[in-house]
Amino acid sequence: MELLRAMCHISAPAGHETQLTEFVLRYVKQNMGQWHTTPAVLAGGEFQDCIILVFGSPRTAVFAHLDSIGFTVRYGRQLIRIGGPMAETGYRLVGEDSQGKIDCTLVVDEDTGALSYDFHREIDRGTELTFYCDFRETATTVQSCYLDNRLGVWNALRLCETLEHGIVVFSCWEEHGGGSVAYLAKHIYETYGVRQALISDITWVTEGVHPGQGVAISLRDSLIPRRAYVDRIRRIAAESGIPHQLEVEGSGGSDAKELQHGAQPWDWCFVGAPEDNVHSPDEIVDKRDIESMLALYRVLMRDL
Amino acid sequence: MELLRAMCHISAPAGHETQLTEFVLRYVKQNMGQWHTTPAVLAGGEFQDCIILVFGSPRTAVFAHLDSIGFTVRYGRQLIRIGGPMAETGYRLVGEDSQGKIDCTLVVDEDTGALSYDFHREIDRGTELTFYCDFRETATTVQSCYLDNRLGVWNALRLCETLEHGIVVFSCWEEHGGGSVAYLAKHIYETYGVRQALISDITWVTEGVHPGQGVAISLRDSLIPRRAYVDRIRRIAAESGIPHQLEVEGSGGSDAKELQHGAQPWDWCFVGAPEDNVHSPDEIVDKRDIESMLALYRVLMRDL
Amino acid sequence: MELLRAMCHISAPAGHETQLTEFVLRYVKQNMGQWHTTPAVLAGGEFQDCIILVFGSPRTAVFAHLDSIGFTVRYGRQLIRIGGPMAETGYRLVGEDSQGKIDCTLVVDEDTGALSYDFHREIDRGTELTFYCDFRETATTVQSCYLDNRLGVWNALRLCETLEHGIVVFSCWEEHGGGSVAYLAKHIYETYGVRQALISDITWVTEGVHPGQGVAISLRDSLIPRRAYVDRIRRIAAESGIPHQLEVEGSGGSDAKELQHGAQPWDWCFVGAPEDNVHSPDEIVDKRDIESMLALYRVLMRDL
Repeated sequence: MELLRAMCHISAPAGHETQLTEFVLRYVKQNMGQWHTTPAVLAGGEFQDCIILVFGSPRTAVFAHLDSIGFTVRYGRQLIRIGGPMAETGYRLVGEDSQGKIDCTLVVDEDTGALSYDFHREIDRGTELTFYCDFRETATTVQSCYLDNRLGVWNALRLCETLEHGIVVFSCWEEHGGGSVAYLAKHIYETYGVRQALISDITWVTEGVHPGQGVAISLRDSLIPRRAYVDRIRRIAAESGIPHQLEVEGSGGSDAKELQHGAQPWDWCFVGAPEDNVHSPDEIVDKRDIESMLALYRVLMRDL
Repeated sequence: MELLRAMCHISAPAGHETQLTEFVLRYVKQNMGQWHTTPAVLAGGEFQDCIILVFGSPRTAVFAHLDSIGFTVRYGRQLIRIGGPMAETGYRLVGEDSQGKIDCTLVVDEDTGALSYDFHREIDRGTELTFYCDFRETATTVQSCYLDNRLGVWNALRLCETLEHGIVVFSCWEEHGGGSVAYLAKHIYETYGVRQALISDITWVTEGVHPGQGVAISLRDSLIPRRAYVDRIRRIAAESGIPHQLEVEGSGGSDAKELQHGAQPWDWCFVGAPEDNVHSPDEIVDKRDIESMLALYRVLMRDL
Repeated sequence: MELLRAMCHISAPAGHETQLTEFVLRYVKQNMGQWHTTPAVLAGGEFQDCIILVFGSPRTAVFAHLDSIGFTVRYGRQLIRIGGPMAETGYRLVGEDSQGKIDCTLVVDEDTGALSYDFHREIDRGTELTFYCDFRETATTVQSCYLDNRLGVWNALRLCETLEHGIVVFSCWEEHGGGSVAYLAKHIYETYGVRQALISDITWVTEGVHPGQGVAISLRDSLIPRRAYVDRIRRIAAESGIPHQLEVEGSGGSDAKELQHGAQPWDWCFVGAPEDNVHSPDEIVDKRDIESMLALYRVLMRDL
């Protein structure tokens, strides 16, 4: 899990994904020689900080978002949220501004819920702070901030090793209202005619989705995917024998929001491992669920 | 009203419209031989579960959504909403899962508002349930679940009988955040240059809109259409002598949301009969308002 | 400031911008002979009530919204909001309906917050009312309703005088959910390949942004622009020596919402003078901030 560990340590809050984009691009260029199929790599310029990898004759695209939640420094010592991070007094936050590296502490006002930081100096207005990464691995689990969605990115990169036909997309801004999938989806549909999507992202442990029982196939979240497509995925998963769970939620969203609302007729389904301690520095995932996630993606990209 | 009655009985919750799509397609194919103009029928594939009918040289498109509100089975006996259905303990819900037909009862927790079902067995996770249809017709009214929007679909299909030039669209997902009108609107604008729309949907009886006083022309809801277009519609309606009412709301939405926010310059106006008992199993509409709705659509599609 | 004064007096609530559109078009045609570069003027038809001016070989587009907040007459004496106007009993509202000019008074129910009007007769359903304009100018300030965004329009028009290369866009519906920038942005990107934007709009005086200290460059509001683009703007502003302030907000939005969510890869940044008494009849802006706004736009359009 060295690749995962490395990516969890990289700062990439929504809107400022550059460092992770560069890391992934470097990884792709260094490793694609060993992959079964060499993809075309689309990045830079009109793709902003996103990356598209095109393998063979694609029928399905995998979307994994690069960005994470975090905090922006406002005025004085105030912080405001990037996306929806958990906030507890004492969380360690890191970043960098014109005066150098920052390693400070989150403070939550007990009465108002207002967020601020505790540090020996003022931090530049507009500086992004992210959780300090304490990556912990056991025989059965990985634990760190930002498994959502470094694990989805990891899954997509591992999938590349054996992928023959398909598209792998690394997107931006997912945690903060979106902003890249609309144009990525348009480009992919218009260039390759592809309109089947899998969302490689991390979901929640709940009373219906348990750690260790396999990757979750989401039947719905705040949005409802087209039943006919989800049913095909369920059939392929059932026939594969790979452990998986069915998720049904009334809230939550993903890159699929932009696919659903965009001007191309995408079919989409969220397929991802569940985590506990969501959006905190202590996100934890069962390794068996990571394994079944990758295994199911391999089958789905072949059979869909 | 046998056509309306038949459609009210068909299950088509947002995301799973297939059965109603097939019904409408069959109806179109069986009846279009008797219509004044034979339309081109676009369906399947990139149109997902939507249908577009193109008559003559179109200037205006009518949008009628196929989908309805409903409920999804979550974990245990929990239900979550599809769109915004009314919920009262005792409502009869129907559906089908791997074990067969379902006919159960809605239960609303008095304290928490949480929804569940009462049935002799557990229902498969992800199963959609819809209101049991008790279709009631009198000399002056029709009453049933899902008049919103089977009546809008009915109006569009009846309009087809005499339509010379125009487009009739049957869309999906309207009740649950949308998801088809963006690509339908793009296809129509780019293929036919059409950017005038009428929304064939059902609205609310309020202190300003009364049953029996004619179809409602909505001057605004949560969104505001372009005044110049709505004024043209008002002039045509006034000259026609067809009974109608002007509606002004600050909330509510329709397929027009996707037209307003899409990347084509659509003009749109909601024109539809008002109903009482909105989003319940007992939606009721005055037959005079159905009549004036169809009459006004005939005039508008000719004169706009 | 006669141009600004004239525009503040024109009624242009979201959805009914026609009068201001015509005023701006007339102004452009009367004045563009004196401008450094003569722009191509795109207006009417598929541009609805928007206007696009294209100068030279554009790299960057300026977006200024024409529309304002206001009120719509509902039933009886009820009013509902267009956008998010402040509401206080006694505000003077003006408009026009089938019976003639209207000059009435806003009434806010103290208990329910419900809005109504006080006038000697009933006003036609659907009539739009806007704040009565009391334009006040001192040596150091301008004060009026609708400085948001007549000042952004004024800035864009003044910028035209010296602009060599660039696009200036006058948009609609910004105050009420948007509805024009999606198609304008698509047209501009597909026709001219331009995907850099500046939002010429008015922001808020806060504890971090003070009147008289220069135009605000917004690092974020409810949305987060791409850091790389905002950093370029900050560097150009710093090198220019023009007074400016950095803004960081967690709420609020602008025409940039549609750029961020559209299907083209726009970079955008909000650059605008701060005002106090936001969305009231008494919006006030420091003249030094207007001056630095225009000065910074001139530099940015040259150097970006």
